[in-house]
Amino acid sequence: MTMHEAGLDQRFALAQSIAEEAGALALDYFNKRDTLVIETKRDPQDVVSIADRNVETLIRERVAARFPADGFLGEEFGHVDGTSGYTWAVDPIDGTAPFVNGLPTWCVSIAVLHGGVPVIGVIHVPCDGEIYASAAGRGASLNGAKLNLDPSRTIQNAITGIGCNNYVAPERVGQIIAALLAMGGNFIRNGSGALMLAYVAAGRLVGYYEPHMRAWDCMAGYCLVKEAGGDYLTFPTEGEALLEGHPVLASNRSVYGDLLALHG
Amino acid sequence: MTMHEAGLDQRFALAQSIAEEAGALALDYFNKRDTLVIETKRDPQDVVSIADRNVETLIRERVAARFPADGFLGEEFGHVDGTSGYTWAVDPIDGTAPFVNGLPTWCVSIAVLHGGVPVIGVIHVPCDGEIYASAAGRGASLNGAKLNLDPSRTIQNAITGIGCNNYVAPERVGQIIAALLAMGGNFIRNGSGALMLAYVAAGRLVGYYEPHMRAWDCMAGYCLVKEAGGDYLTFPTEGEALLEGHPVLASNRSVYGDLLALHG
Repeated sequence: MTMHEAGLDQRFALAQSIAEEAGALALDYFNKRDTLVIETKRDPQDVVSIADRNVETLIRERVAARFPADGFLGEEFGHVDGTSGYTWAVDPIDGTAPFVNGLPTWCVSIAVLHGGVPVIGVIHVPCDGEIYASAAGRGASLNGAKLNLDPSRTIQNAITGIGCNNYVAPERVGQIIAALLAMGGNFIRNGSGALMLAYVAAGRLVGYYEPHMRAWDCMAGYCLVKEAGGDYLTFPTEGEALLEGHPVLASNRSVYGDLLALHG
Repeated sequence: MTMHEAGLDQRFALAQSIAEEAGALALDYFNKRDTLVIETKRDPQDVVSIADRNVETLIRERVAARFPADGFLGEEFGHVDGTSGYTWAVDPIDGTAPFVNGLPTWCVSIAVLHGGVPVIGVIHVPCDGEIYASAAGRGASLNGAKLNLDPSRTIQNAITGIGCNNYVAPERVGQIIAALLAMGGNFIRNGSGALMLAYVAAGRLVGYYEPHMRAWDCMAGYCLVKEAGGDYLTFPTEGEALLEGHPVLASNRSVYGDLLALHG
C-alpha cells in the first residue's frame, strides 16, 4: 500500500464516521425545526440556519483534530488552504430549503479532493437512514451494499434529476426541462443536488444535470457516480475556479452523451 | 349525528385501516422490486406492475366486503357504479415511476367522494412511515398531529410542487416552471402528485399545480388540503368527467391567486 493509499483509507473511514455524526446532529435540528431562526442569503429562497453552521463547525473540528494539514472548503465558512494535498469539500446540509420546509430530501455531503479530483464521497440521508460511501478504486456502496450502474437504462426508460438555483435564468431552466421531456425523458427535482447525485450512483436516477453548482454540492456525488461505473463532467478546481460555480453533469455512461446535448 | 355523518365516520375509519394494510403490501413489493416485471402503458415512462394491480385488488375487496353498495374508481381496474351515494377513488401506488426506480416518493392514495366532492382523503407514505388523514369537517392530520396552514407563506418564501405527464406538451411544462421561478418561486417535483398534495396539507409545500391529473391521483390530497385550511380548483365529477383528466391546483389560500395566474 502506498502512502497515498493509506492516507486515502484513513480519510475514507473518517469521512464515514463524521457523516454519521453530522447527520445525527442535523436530524436533531430537523426534528425541532419549528424553533430554528431562518435567515436568507441571496434572496428569500436562499435560506440558512444555525443548523447549517453548527453542523459544518462539527465537521471542520473533526477533520482538523485528525488531519490538521488538510485543506477545507465548506458552504458556510469558506475555504482554508492545506499542505497535505488533501482538501475536504463539505456541504453540512445540502437541500436547506427542503430541510426548513420539513421535506425529507436533504443530506450531509462530504468529499475529499486530491490533485483536484474527488477521491472520497460520502453522503448521509438522515430521514431515510441511508449512507452512500465511495473512494477512488474502492467502489461505491449504499448502506454497505455495492452499487453498479445498469447499462440498459436510458433517458426514455429511467428518470433524470434536474437542478437549478437563482444563478440560472428561469427561461433556461424551462428550456432544459422541456428539451428533456421532448426526448421522452422524465425528471425529478427534490431540492438537494447532492442527494440526486447519490441517486444516480444508486441507479434510481439515470443522470443528473444542473447548470451551476458549487464544489461542496457536487464533489461527493461525483465520486459516488464514478465509483458506481458512471461518468461526470470535470469540475474545474485550479485556483479560484474551485470556489466558483460550474455546470454539473453526472450519469450512467449510457446517457452521458444525451445529457451533454441538453447542456449544449 | 345524521346518517350521513355516521356513514362518513365509518368509511373514514375503514379508509385509514385499508391505507395502512395496502401500504404494507406495497412496501413488500417495493423491497423486492428487482423481481417485479415492469410493463409500460402509454409510453416507456408510463409504467405499471403487478404491485399496482394487487394493491388495488386488496383495496377493492376490503371496500366491497364492508360497503358493497359503494361505487369504486381505481387507476388500474376502472370504474364501478354504486348506489349508496359514496364512491371510492383510489390510486394503489401513486408515483409508480419513483416506485420502480427505487425512489421513496410514492404513496397509497384513498379518497371517498359524496355528491361529487371528496369527503375523505387518506394518503399512506410507507417509506417515510407517514399517514395523512382527513374527512370533511373533521380536520386533517399527519400521524395523528393536526395540520393547519400558515397564512404567512408565499410563493417567494416557500416551495411549490409541480407535476406533469405525457398528456401535457413539454413546452407547456417548461413555461410553467420558468414562470414560477420568474415570480421568485422555487419548485420540486418528486414523481407523486398525491404525495405533493399531502405535502401542501402539511405546509411543506405552499401549493401544487399540475395541468392534467385523474380523480384517483388528486381527490385524497384535495380533501387533505381543504381540511388543513387550504383551497382547491374544483375537479369536475359529473358523468364521464369523473373519468377524464383535468387541471389540479391546491394550495394555501395565501397563494391560490398566484397559482391560478400560473394556470392561466
